[in-house]
Amino acid sequence: MPRLLLCGFEPFGSDSVNPALHIIEALDGQRLALPDREHGSVEIIACRVPVTRFAAIDSVVEAIGVHAPDVVIMLGQASGRSAITPERIAINLDDYRIADNGGHQPVDEPVEPGGPDGCFTTLPIKAMVSDLQAAGLPASVSYSAGTFVCNHLFYGIQRHLADSPIRSGFVHIPALPEQSLDGRLPTMSLDSLLEGVRTLCLSAMSHHEDVRIGGGNIS
Amino acid sequence: MPRLLLCGFEPFGSDSVNPALHIIEALDGQRLALPDREHGSVEIIACRVPVTRFAAIDSVVEAIGVHAPDVVIMLGQASGRSAITPERIAINLDDYRIADNGGHQPVDEPVEPGGPDGCFTTLPIKAMVSDLQAAGLPASVSYSAGTFVCNHLFYGIQRHLADSPIRSGFVHIPALPEQSLDGRLPTMSLDSLLEGVRTLCLSAMSHHEDVRIGGGNIS
Amino acid sequence: MPRLLLCGFEPFGSDSVNPALHIIEALDGQRLALPDREHGSVEIIACRVPVTRFAAIDSVVEAIGVHAPDVVIMLGQASGRSAITPERIAINLDDYRIADNGGHQPVDEPVEPGGPDGCFTTLPIKAMVSDLQAAGLPASVSYSAGTFVCNHLFYGIQRHLADSPIRSGFVHIPALPEQSLDGRLPTMSLDSLLEGVRTLCLSAMSHHEDVRIGGGNIS
Amino acid sequence: MPRLLLCGFEPFGSDSVNPALHIIEALDGQRLALPDREHGSVEIIACRVPVTRFAAIDSVVEAIGVHAPDVVIMLGQASGRSAITPERIAINLDDYRIADNGGHQPVDEPVEPGGPDGCFTTLPIKAMVSDLQAAGLPASVSYSAGTFVCNHLFYGIQRHLADSPIRSGFVHIPALPEQSLDGRLPTMSLDSLLEGVRTLCLSAMSHHEDVRIGGGNIS
Repeated sequence: MPRLLLCGFEPFGSDSVNPALHIIEALDGQRLALPDREHGSVEIIACRVPVTRFAAIDSVVEAIGVHAPDVVIMLGQASGRSAITPERIAINLDDYRIADNGGHQPVDEPVEPGGPDGCFTTLPIKAMVSDLQAAGLPASVSYSAGTFVCNHLFYGIQRHLADSPIRSGFVHIPALPEQSLDGRLPTMSLDSLLEGVRTLCLSAMSHHEDVRIGGGNIS
Repeated sequence: MPRLLLCGFEPFGSDSVNPALHIIEALDGQRLALPDREHGSVEIIACRVPVTRFAAIDSVVEAIGVHAPDVVIMLGQASGRSAITPERIAINLDDYRIADNGGHQPVDEPVEPGGPDGCFTTLPIKAMVSDLQAAGLPASVSYSAGTFVCNHLFYGIQRHLADSPIRSGFVHIPALPEQSLDGRLPTMSLDSLLEGVRTLCLSAMSHHEDVRIGGGNIS
Repeated sequence: MPRLLLCGFEPFGSDSVNPALHIIEALDGQRLALPDREHGSVEIIACRVPVTRFAAIDSVVEAIGVHAPDVVIMLGQASGRSAITPERIAINLDDYRIADNGGHQPVDEPVEPGGPDGCFTTLPIKAMVSDLQAAGLPASVSYSAGTFVCNHLFYGIQRHLADSPIRSGFVHIPALPEQSLDGRLPTMSLDSLLEGVRTLCLSAMSHHEDVRIGGGNIS
Repeated sequence: MPRLLLCGFEPFGSDSVNPALHIIEALDGQRLALPDREHGSVEIIACRVPVTRFAAIDSVVEAIGVHAPDVVIMLGQASGRSAITPERIAINLDDYRIADNGGHQPVDEPVEPGGPDGCFTTLPIKAMVSDLQAAGLPASVSYSAGTFVCNHLFYGIQRHLADSPIRSGFVHIPALPEQSLDGRLPTMSLDSLLEGVRTLCLSAMSHHEDVRIGGGNIS
């Protein structure tokens, strides 16, 4: 059975929860039926990732080695976004506005000295956005995963899998309603997020080539 | 058994759905147990309201006459808001940025010629916000219900019930996820909205005096 | 010569400057030629207002007594707004999210016990918005002046002048560029603000009746 | 005398003006005194760029050949931004949400087939942001230049100059006040923009190495 490694970050900053962690724990071990195949399903394997510059990549690299997944999807929280947003590109930059959970706060340092400036996702992100919207969920492509541990991990894993058939990428998700009780930030319910991530996983497994649908930004 | 008249608008403008309508239809006839009373519950009675300047108030006034509710809560959609927002004040102004569903588009006309400039809600809105947040739902007081049919109805009903023991007010709710598939606007899931409106109804029934909790804006 | 009392608040909260104060000091004593009259101009008289619940109204009432102006325009800063926004209505509510400069932080108290819930501006705000836009400046009507000292003063002066021929109202203005160096909030340059307030003053003097132009909000 | 090629786009989409064009025309031929050098100044040479996929890069490449500048700064309008935002990275992607001025609307096509996924700016963007803020102007680093002609040009020129000592990069600027008269979008005055771009030019000429100041995003 094909396997999908679903990675989620622990809480960080001033937040005591991270929706990514709730989601990977809820989906861990589930087998999702693949709609486009006559037989077969995909097994979801959860990977909990520390929000620490010098541990995040290693923890996912190790899980890839252990589980040999077909696809790796990394999830992180993006406070202030109102949609599920697959990321297009990881960049070779650590510039942390706050310290990570290990107390590290690098400025203008590379993730990988000498590495390329950017690495595109290898996930079918246009298909994922299209499938999310077809499920009634707000979704769009994002063109910046930030410069914190989310981007750090994303870049590290894209590099690790650069010559591998394993496809991988990062998806930012909105905060939970309970994380913005005063209503200043947009949120998405855990049920919607769970449905969305299930949809993402199936979409990533079903599309080996991405679809060509407009999804750009003017600026 | 006490009764709560729950009013919801039909779709308007470019939207083909209105979450307010889904909610009142889902809750119509339900009996919600009142947590603060030893015995008893409140019956929800739905009232569907046309988005038409010359019909909205009459339709709710008639329903009040028929059902003799203890409390009237009017629901409307506020695209762009990320929280459930009980409104503080209705104003004596019709200034429609778009035409209503009857084709009317007044500019700078009063709802009630000679009426007072503003009318405060008589609902316990601070308690409602507090109870919503305690339920994990984003909520805040709003200080403008706009100048469209929502405000028109709100003003008309506050005036109609000015000397009545029936308490009443307006609550704006976010758009549904399916109404903002590109993710540009914040949304709230129907499940969260249903839980929120149930919470609102119980809160309004349980608090005859509002609680005193800060909930203001600088500007 | 007709006189216009231009009131501006001192800095408050975490800000050490207030654009309103810069503006009234820059325009104090200026005589602006009235475009619509064959002869004549208006003299601007500045009034500096403390951001204190129990002093703000008195300071403007006293200045009105001393100067006997034809028009009173009160200016306050609204961080986060990108336009010059004449306010439509003052409400009878003090609900301070932060303490004022005197340390007062009332919650859900009236400005005037027993006063009406709301008081409309008596300035020609649609004409003012139209004239600002004609001058190339972003402008719109606002339907909430907040619940802090700005609204408190606005309400108090509208009540004080309720039976007077003196017309009065409040205008919120954006923060200055130097107040948002990280670019998170929109701003307006001091030059644009000065041009805008000059335009506002002339517009208020020139229009004894407001023009009828759409300027409402859906919600 | 050192030369700086200052490139600005023509209007596009629904806009009839582009602040970038106003700026380059106003600064064309000016000599700006370099503060950090005992003697000397930099000459600004303007380059007007068509918003057309198949002409933008060529027009700047040609101007570089003719003028042999020391530094190339490309300017584009980013509606909705409230700050001057030097861009960190160009990406190898054309995904146009609207057609360019030549009618082209590519989806998911590379700027340069086989080119690297991303190219960092070679301008001292942290120093530029710092100098802008020191001048009282809102500024921050941006991590996405979009996927339209701005990014297309940025990528093309970074690639063209990859092995050259000429340093280059892209800076997005806010819309002008006259472009957002209803106040829905933040804006920056032409005077502020002119001061900002002069500051940018001097900063880019004065810093051959960038300063190390935090300027990252969480997401």
